[in-house]
Amino acid sequence: MSPTFSFRVLHTDGAARRGEMTTAHGVVQTPAFMPVGTRGAVKGVTPRDLREAGAEIILGNTYHLWLRPGDALIARLGGLHRFTGWDGPMLTDSGGFQAFSLGEQRVISEEGIRFRSHLDGSEHLLTPEGATDIQARLGPDIAMVLDECLAQPAPAAAVRDSTERSARWARRCRDRFLELQRLDAGDVRLDGETAESRVPNPEPPIPTPQSLLPSPQPTPSGPQITNPAQAQFGIIQGGTVPELRTLSVERTLAIGFEAYAIGGLSVGEPAETMYSVVSHTAPQLPADRPRYLMGVGTPLDIVEAVSRGVDLFDCVMPTRNARNGQLFTSEGRLTIKNARFADDGGPPDPACSCYTCRTHSRAYLRHLFVSGEIGAAVLNTIHNLRFYLDTMARVRQAIVFGTLESLRLSLHAIFSRPLSDS
Amino acid sequence: MSPTFSFRVLHTDGAARRGEMTTAHGVVQTPAFMPVGTRGAVKGVTPRDLREAGAEIILGNTYHLWLRPGDALIARLGGLHRFTGWDGPMLTDSGGFQAFSLGEQRVISEEGIRFRSHLDGSEHLLTPEGATDIQARLGPDIAMVLDECLAQPAPAAAVRDSTERSARWARRCRDRFLELQRLDAGDVRLDGETAESRVPNPEPPIPTPQSLLPSPQPTPSGPQITNPAQAQFGIIQGGTVPELRTLSVERTLAIGFEAYAIGGLSVGEPAETMYSVVSHTAPQLPADRPRYLMGVGTPLDIVEAVSRGVDLFDCVMPTRNARNGQLFTSEGRLTIKNARFADDGGPPDPACSCYTCRTHSRAYLRHLFVSGEIGAAVLNTIHNLRFYLDTMARVRQAIVFGTLESLRLSLHAIFSRPLSDS
Repeated sequence: MSPTFSFRVLHTDGAARRGEMTTAHGVVQTPAFMPVGTRGAVKGVTPRDLREAGAEIILGNTYHLWLRPGDALIARLGGLHRFTGWDGPMLTDSGGFQAFSLGEQRVISEEGIRFRSHLDGSEHLLTPEGATDIQARLGPDIAMVLDECLAQPAPAAAVRDSTERSARWARRCRDRFLELQRLDAGDVRLDGETAESRVPNPEPPIPTPQSLLPSPQPTPSGPQITNPAQAQFGIIQGGTVPELRTLSVERTLAIGFEAYAIGGLSVGEPAETMYSVVSHTAPQLPADRPRYLMGVGTPLDIVEAVSRGVDLFDCVMPTRNARNGQLFTSEGRLTIKNARFADDGGPPDPACSCYTCRTHSRAYLRHLFVSGEIGAAVLNTIHNLRFYLDTMARVRQAIVFGTLESLRLSLHAIFSRPLSDS
Repeated sequence: MSPTFSFRVLHTDGAARRGEMTTAHGVVQTPAFMPVGTRGAVKGVTPRDLREAGAEIILGNTYHLWLRPGDALIARLGGLHRFTGWDGPMLTDSGGFQAFSLGEQRVISEEGIRFRSHLDGSEHLLTPEGATDIQARLGPDIAMVLDECLAQPAPAAAVRDSTERSARWARRCRDRFLELQRLDAGDVRLDGETAESRVPNPEPPIPTPQSLLPSPQPTPSGPQITNPAQAQFGIIQGGTVPELRTLSVERTLAIGFEAYAIGGLSVGEPAETMYSVVSHTAPQLPADRPRYLMGVGTPLDIVEAVSRGVDLFDCVMPTRNARNGQLFTSEGRLTIKNARFADDGGPPDPACSCYTCRTHSRAYLRHLFVSGEIGAAVLNTIHNLRFYLDTMARVRQAIVFGTLESLRLSLHAIFSRPLSDS
């Protein structure tokens, strides 16, 4: 592992692990959930709210940040941490998933993904090397390799081709990552600048009258490293075919990354299929590295994956559902616009101690939501994030106490039943 | 004045007063600015953010809260303070201005204002007695009388008729207000309930499984007092005609209120006209009561009115402009979407210590605004409110030090110049 990235398992309960992941910007207690800050902001909350909710690490989307405001601009402003005001651990995806799902007229070749921006139609090419360079400039503590996101279901032959391409891309990402590290340690950059002329984490400029004037700066042509302590995770693909998952594990481990993610899940397959792939894949990953299940999921999905040995999660569900008026509570999901809450003076979740639950009633949250007030999104997000992060804290505690199975059953009792208010 | 409402002047500087207004929910240092919480929420911020920005009193809109979620519902849930989570001083307008400006097919008669709701077309009649009852149920610390908002410019005869009608409505509002107070002090309500059967400020119900079930409650048919310590302010009308302003002062003071507001300004007239009406009217109001200039205004308008003897202000400008990307700063107004800020790593306002300015750069705020992120509204609002409330703190300090004129000139130097970035 890199000098600043490390992981150790403190306790286990069956396959579940209670661990501690150390990054350049701090320590993350695992299993951990990463709130998603798509465009450099977790929608509806400030960095302070995130801390208060118990977040220890957040995720940023490379695709969005690359297209707007741009990785070069973020690098000039000191990197993603300084730009967003979140000073804790941060992970970025590679941008591949959004290039597939949001990019227009996309064409995938061995070279990379060619697409038109969903913002302005401009043409872009995302290569493994490019995705690595962009993340080097953004400067998260953890970068992800570019992988191919194959639409499912797909014929086994297509899944095999795609899995092998992802492995070749992973190799190119790692080569580029190591090359950047060597360049950063040496004196000379690809474009001939000396290392000393770069400031990895410049202090923000002291505001002066000049800072009010336009100061166009040239986009750096060569690579640039904002966070020299960045770690890089490989991604296991292989769809729902066990042998291809195993093949992907072999290929990806042979390259060697600080840690490994399981990708290509939570894309519409049945929950049982996802659990089955995780059961097959997680045990093949090194026990001394964190395992990250990308884009997952519901509280149930998370506890199921934890019990199969996964350590890291990210999902837009708590934040997106908050904006749509759906709260996760100790009594299950709750659709706040329901008329039954109009007169309900009780807290959104009686078992929760977040700012929203301490301060406001269901009746008030319903009023704000029905009135289209911004505050509805803000207060619901504060609660949902706390619920998710509290759930992770309970998961961690349960692993220490050896009671994860009992927690798993109680979460099923709460969340398996249909919405009582829908 | 009512037993719990009081005001005292601590210092003066010319006509300007540094005072202290005591209400049932706390003390307000004046001159004071009231952020506007139209629908029971100051858009984009939580009660905690308001406190941190330095707000000591906020305003709620009776029209909006009456139509949705309803004054009876808010009363059942313990009143506006408990409903909104803001436990400090609160003032509501009478609902008249919005009934005029938002209500459809409105017809004004001696009885009151008949209109159709902008929400669902339902027909409503807002009378002086009704406006008083609604505010009694909402339970702010300060209620306003219903006045007629005449479209300007209007012939002098129409202004006179309207001014006299407003005075008659003020009389009816005060009569109703005093009647409600007598009923509250006695044993019997208009509808025959005993006073003991009402709980002025019920504790929120302890959540039980039952609280999850629908619990329709009948709308109280009679009046109801949520905040027995409520004060009521009269409103001076009279358009821009000095004699009619004087007439309105005489009529309104003859009725007698806890304090008085100057209404009918900031409706499109030139700033000089507004200042002139304030100069004419404010000195005629009792020196031992706070004076409230409704709906005003820009930082310049506020300092000009303070220097003419006004103590209280409210305006949507800091919050609305924040959502539109305009920041008030010590360097003037700043349009955050301007391209010159794309690369600006400096704080929004170098002289400000709000959360936004401590945490984020202009470049980041621009990025959020251009990307349509909720966070843009939240962070801009946190800053603009702090700027307004800091400005009020500087105004109060300047009065104590006898330096208001110098502050007035410096605010003119900052805000009279055209937008440098537009």
